[in-house]
Amino acid sequence: MRTFQAKKLDEAIALALAHVAPIAETETLPTTDSLGRVLAEDIICPEDVPGFARSAMDGYAVRASETHGASRERPVLLKIIGSVEMGQDPRTLPSVHAGEACEIPTGGPMPDGADAVVMLEETERQNNQSVRLFAEVTPGAHVLSADSDFQRGELVFRAGHKLRAVDIGALIAMGILSVKIYRRVRVSLISTGSELVEAEHAIRPGQVRQINSHILRHLLEGAQGISLGIVPDDRERLRATIQHAVRESDMVLLSGGSSVGARDWTLDLLQELGEVLVHGLQIKPGKPTIFAVVDKKPVIGLPGNPVSCVLVFEKFVRPVLARRSGLRVLLPAHRLASAQLTQTVHSALGREEFVAIRLRLDESLGTLYAEPVLGHSNNISTLARADGILRVPSEFEEIPAGAQVWVELL
Amino acid sequence: MRTFQAKKLDEAIALALAHVAPIAETETLPTTDSLGRVLAEDIICPEDVPGFARSAMDGYAVRASETHGASRERPVLLKIIGSVEMGQDPRTLPSVHAGEACEIPTGGPMPDGADAVVMLEETERQNNQSVRLFAEVTPGAHVLSADSDFQRGELVFRAGHKLRAVDIGALIAMGILSVKIYRRVRVSLISTGSELVEAEHAIRPGQVRQINSHILRHLLEGAQGISLGIVPDDRERLRATIQHAVRESDMVLLSGGSSVGARDWTLDLLQELGEVLVHGLQIKPGKPTIFAVVDKKPVIGLPGNPVSCVLVFEKFVRPVLARRSGLRVLLPAHRLASAQLTQTVHSALGREEFVAIRLRLDESLGTLYAEPVLGHSNNISTLARADGILRVPSEFEEIPAGAQVWVELL
Repeated sequence: MRTFQAKKLDEAIALALAHVAPIAETETLPTTDSLGRVLAEDIICPEDVPGFARSAMDGYAVRASETHGASRERPVLLKIIGSVEMGQDPRTLPSVHAGEACEIPTGGPMPDGADAVVMLEETERQNNQSVRLFAEVTPGAHVLSADSDFQRGELVFRAGHKLRAVDIGALIAMGILSVKIYRRVRVSLISTGSELVEAEHAIRPGQVRQINSHILRHLLEGAQGISLGIVPDDRERLRATIQHAVRESDMVLLSGGSSVGARDWTLDLLQELGEVLVHGLQIKPGKPTIFAVVDKKPVIGLPGNPVSCVLVFEKFVRPVLARRSGLRVLLPAHRLASAQLTQTVHSALGREEFVAIRLRLDESLGTLYAEPVLGHSNNISTLARADGILRVPSEFEEIPAGAQVWVELL
Repeated sequence: MRTFQAKKLDEAIALALAHVAPIAETETLPTTDSLGRVLAEDIICPEDVPGFARSAMDGYAVRASETHGASRERPVLLKIIGSVEMGQDPRTLPSVHAGEACEIPTGGPMPDGADAVVMLEETERQNNQSVRLFAEVTPGAHVLSADSDFQRGELVFRAGHKLRAVDIGALIAMGILSVKIYRRVRVSLISTGSELVEAEHAIRPGQVRQINSHILRHLLEGAQGISLGIVPDDRERLRATIQHAVRESDMVLLSGGSSVGARDWTLDLLQELGEVLVHGLQIKPGKPTIFAVVDKKPVIGLPGNPVSCVLVFEKFVRPVLARRSGLRVLLPAHRLASAQLTQTVHSALGREEFVAIRLRLDESLGTLYAEPVLGHSNNISTLARADGILRVPSEFEEIPAGAQVWVELL
């Protein structure tokens, strides 16, 4: 049997990503149903947006050359030939000739002939027929061109981009009402351990309710979790369940078992069914993590302790899942809060440690404090009582009380 | 007519929150369907969790007093009376008496009589009958008590807590399979402006596709958006739509119109129908924001420019929505990336500015760069091209090129 050395987190992620490909299947969805989904096509803008030149200000549309030398002392007088209304077809507007101006609101279409806008604040209306301009403008002043938002033929989004609310707005602005996206990644969730019971059943002393699959399913965000239930400490049943999961889904997450037997079987079975690339991470908690590839699909063995399970998901599984989902760029992105550490946190050199943190706001001082939660990683209460996680880099032996730290919010 | 002075963002939020109450209605949902929802009840733990003492290590359950003086040189020999299996009912286990030890896996229930566990690494099995212990342990060593995760009667979550994935795990661990939560906040979305057309219709020059309601609906997260469509620049139709929206929902967001008339009507109508508390924010973009209360419900007038609309939502509307949703604590929480600014950003003293930023990773150097996106706030492309937002505080006139900055990811 191959023996493994625990890997640094960054190395393990790089190795895993080198062995994971985006899923092949795509689907086409209405743009308004695609929030958080990953584009499977480049988006090329089909038309100029907004498609007509418009004013960026309330004011008067003019020929810039007419405003030459205009000032408070020497205003230029122009004849008002009309008023642009919001939404009006610019082809129905009178052309602006020398000596003429047309009233225009912000967003109003520029009339023919006009090439600049003088802001309302720099004008004074004489009567209904004419307006005095107090400022000179250059051609294009306060005018947004017909392609100022998007240009026809422009590459707006690349395949692999995850659609945000503003992107949905951009697609609709371009008239793109459906998009080709990667289908949701299906992730099988398997909990192992003879001590586990599903929560709808009564438990007796010695048994514990299965929670890891529930937590993982809710951490998946855009992906679809498929709970395959609990597999007791039985090697053949575990093998059959892993094989079924690999066949029916795009990625498999195993959690537990905490017994020696179950731990060994998972490693054995993954070596037998595929290739084990990582066994052990140099992080705490989370060391006993396994990354394998079976039939080109990632299969990850997570620790059974709920705290370790959640941390390994966030730090190791999330980038693997992102790659499998088709995401092109994996930006380092956490929801962070800056807070003052209330007590010194100790850590072993050479491994990264993650410490559960509760935030406490002292309203009179306005200070946010970060209090370590001193729970066991066997206990989900450790995270339920925490607001976030403090990362202690492997080069640190401690972070002293009083330090201002960044807490990654759960 | 009352006149208003533009308010600082913090002051405006504080004033708005003082006038917004959580919605009254609650519902009961299965715990596994409550991710992201806000608890409407305190959660008191109904039982000790896990409910039995268990081992935190693989090893031998013993009476601590028996290990007195044990060392590599002077091991203590104990008789093995059995082996604990995962999930086994501890009442079916033999009691551990003086001179005895029972094999136990991590998570296994402690047998009667034993009060400590000696780690496997500190033992050597002699044969199937006895084990040599090389270390002394104190009572409770490597034992997690019956209430080590949660204690019966303990206040675990307060009403107003937003449920995260780990909290769902904690609730299930306690056997709490349904929870009372605030029902989803219903937010009416109204777009105003005669130039706007819904995207499923053809547009001609002068018209633009309505996008703000779509963007806002996708920013709402846990809340339910109700799109009330486009209201052209018509005061009576706007009044009727606002009145309908206040009747039918918990909160109203108006965006646009960009014409002078529509802007004035929104302010007029809100003064007529309720109380206007904020008119104008000292931020850029986003100045022309209105906060009003009509029939005790928040009604917010957002700028029509999509960039301003999104920023005012994120900075001003989000805390108001959180309070209306029942959230107790509003933690400052952004998804942040640290990056190096590529060009100097200028800003006016006395107002906060928000600059759209594109992130670019130089893979050879490993440096993440923050490039300002120089688009007009009229254009959704400004945000579609951006990865995040840089906040320039009101006391800054510039942030120089080369500065390391925090970018709030979109």
